[in-house]
Amino acid sequence: MQSAVSSTGRRPLKVGLDVGGTKTDAVAIDAKGDVVALRRLRTGWGPDAVADTILAAVEELRLELRDDDVEFVSVGVGMPGQTVPGTARMRHAVNLGVTEFDMATAVAPRLGGVAVAVENDVKAAAIGAYAMHGNVGTIAYLNLGTGIAAGIVSDGILWRGARGTAGEIGHISVDPQGPLCRCGQRGCIEALAGGGAVAERWGQGGELPIRDVFDAADGGDERGLLLREELVRGVAAAIRVLVLTTDADAIVLGGGLTGLGDRLMTHVDQELAQSAAASAFMTSLRLPERLQMLAPGSAVAAIGAALIGPTTTEDYHHG
Amino acid sequence: MQSAVSSTGRRPLKVGLDVGGTKTDAVAIDAKGDVVALRRLRTGWGPDAVADTILAAVEELRLELRDDDVEFVSVGVGMPGQTVPGTARMRHAVNLGVTEFDMATAVAPRLGGVAVAVENDVKAAAIGAYAMHGNVGTIAYLNLGTGIAAGIVSDGILWRGARGTAGEIGHISVDPQGPLCRCGQRGCIEALAGGGAVAERWGQGGELPIRDVFDAADGGDERGLLLREELVRGVAAAIRVLVLTTDADAIVLGGGLTGLGDRLMTHVDQELAQSAAASAFMTSLRLPERLQMLAPGSAVAAIGAALIGPTTTEDYHHG
Repeated sequence: MQSAVSSTGRRPLKVGLDVGGTKTDAVAIDAKGDVVALRRLRTGWGPDAVADTILAAVEELRLELRDDDVEFVSVGVGMPGQTVPGTARMRHAVNLGVTEFDMATAVAPRLGGVAVAVENDVKAAAIGAYAMHGNVGTIAYLNLGTGIAAGIVSDGILWRGARGTAGEIGHISVDPQGPLCRCGQRGCIEALAGGGAVAERWGQGGELPIRDVFDAADGGDERGLLLREELVRGVAAAIRVLVLTTDADAIVLGGGLTGLGDRLMTHVDQELAQSAAASAFMTSLRLPERLQMLAPGSAVAAIGAALIGPTTTEDYHHG
Repeated sequence: MQSAVSSTGRRPLKVGLDVGGTKTDAVAIDAKGDVVALRRLRTGWGPDAVADTILAAVEELRLELRDDDVEFVSVGVGMPGQTVPGTARMRHAVNLGVTEFDMATAVAPRLGGVAVAVENDVKAAAIGAYAMHGNVGTIAYLNLGTGIAAGIVSDGILWRGARGTAGEIGHISVDPQGPLCRCGQRGCIEALAGGGAVAERWGQGGELPIRDVFDAADGGDERGLLLREELVRGVAAAIRVLVLTTDADAIVLGGGLTGLGDRLMTHVDQELAQSAAASAFMTSLRLPERLQMLAPGSAVAAIGAALIGPTTTEDYHHG
């Protein structure tokens, strides 16, 4: 348990950032895990601009809290890409124009040496979802975005595995006759349900292609109906895979596609109900009871990022 | 670390049993985890006979070690079925004719009150496989038997999940056009590759129906070829699911089907090589490097059972 007052006599806060392709969420949380400040800003492109975004976000939080006697004790950042075990380095954050990014050199010195940590954004969201769920049991966070991936936290431990592919369920094939995935397999969950893959098959461009697919399906368009059916089947498969491997208490859905809200969930619930009707075993899993969808604009990934810093390499790394 | 000498001055040993449908393996291991005694005997049918089998196995180990000054400090038992969290009770051990079995009342008093524990046999084997692998990283034990299930141990923790279905990957559907599973779904991994399901579709009876299927396939029989192809596809799917969810360092294959040895592995390796050839991502997972098959007659489940006792409810239970 962290003390409510730091060695400087000021109230210690942890900062967490979720640096996404377009926007960055920033939160400051107190020792109880409550959010005491929250900001959203645009993300810059490329490593220098990302570093500037992080520093600007921390500064905005500081300004928001300027009347309070607080101290930022750590800054944890979630972003797409792969962490390098035992470091504060992130690789292949393609959406951000970043090949490699080292928090320790790019950010920490400009924060007065505050402890920093970095985590894959889906894994950070999983940690946030676990906290949201009361820090007990097993939680799977299922990110439904351009790609499909999951983060799993059990009894406070983020599952990492040997080579960083734990939770990469998007590339489990669930249909040998399904659409070709960019990974080379057929019928991957991500090929069926990933926002990128569905938009590509839809092929009509647009700002919100998945919304367009749902609109078309609602209007009876055959192609829209097929793509929506495949998408829903992929999401349901991801949920089943997570429950049958991890037996998580809760499957927390987040990511861009959850912006569809009930339009998505109604169909996912139908698909799960249909498979439960055919299978007493599926019924016994009580999948619908385990499903939770994050509220739009939820800062769960930023909260999770705050919780990892600066303990990543000690508490959460199990490479 | 356990001391090498117990409070009685005798060398403390842990007993582990793997109570299977036909035979029971029994081991005694020392504080270093080395097997110092090993017995195999027939399993009785029904709760009373199972209790007698356990007591007889412990007695046989004691006789084998009679010249040594040893003390059995715990007895851990692996058997098919579902444990009741926080107890030494096992439910639905169908293969043993057991609806419910309580080690604490059926066995412990007749062992002079020695600490007892019980664990699902696949999970016990996973714990044994983890020890065999040096007690580091993440291990998935994939049981290829009448059914298909996995046990996963990461950083010393057995994954349980919320309702005991962690590792029940046999009922992940990987082909919507696949054979009907007894669970009601189509194309479950277990429907494709479970010894029971394959034997049923083969439908010719016999002592070793899966061996017969492989023989028929070798002889060019069309039905044999199809069933073997499906079986291999199911095993490969199970391996991919485990790596993509848990990213285990090692996937340890055990269970009755592994009695086929290289006859099985050659085809599984081919199937994995084929999917790797089509997918750089699959290649990057290096699945063949992670695969290990237990030696025939391996006592890994008994060793794992010894390691759970008597700490199940403290160290391993995370319900």
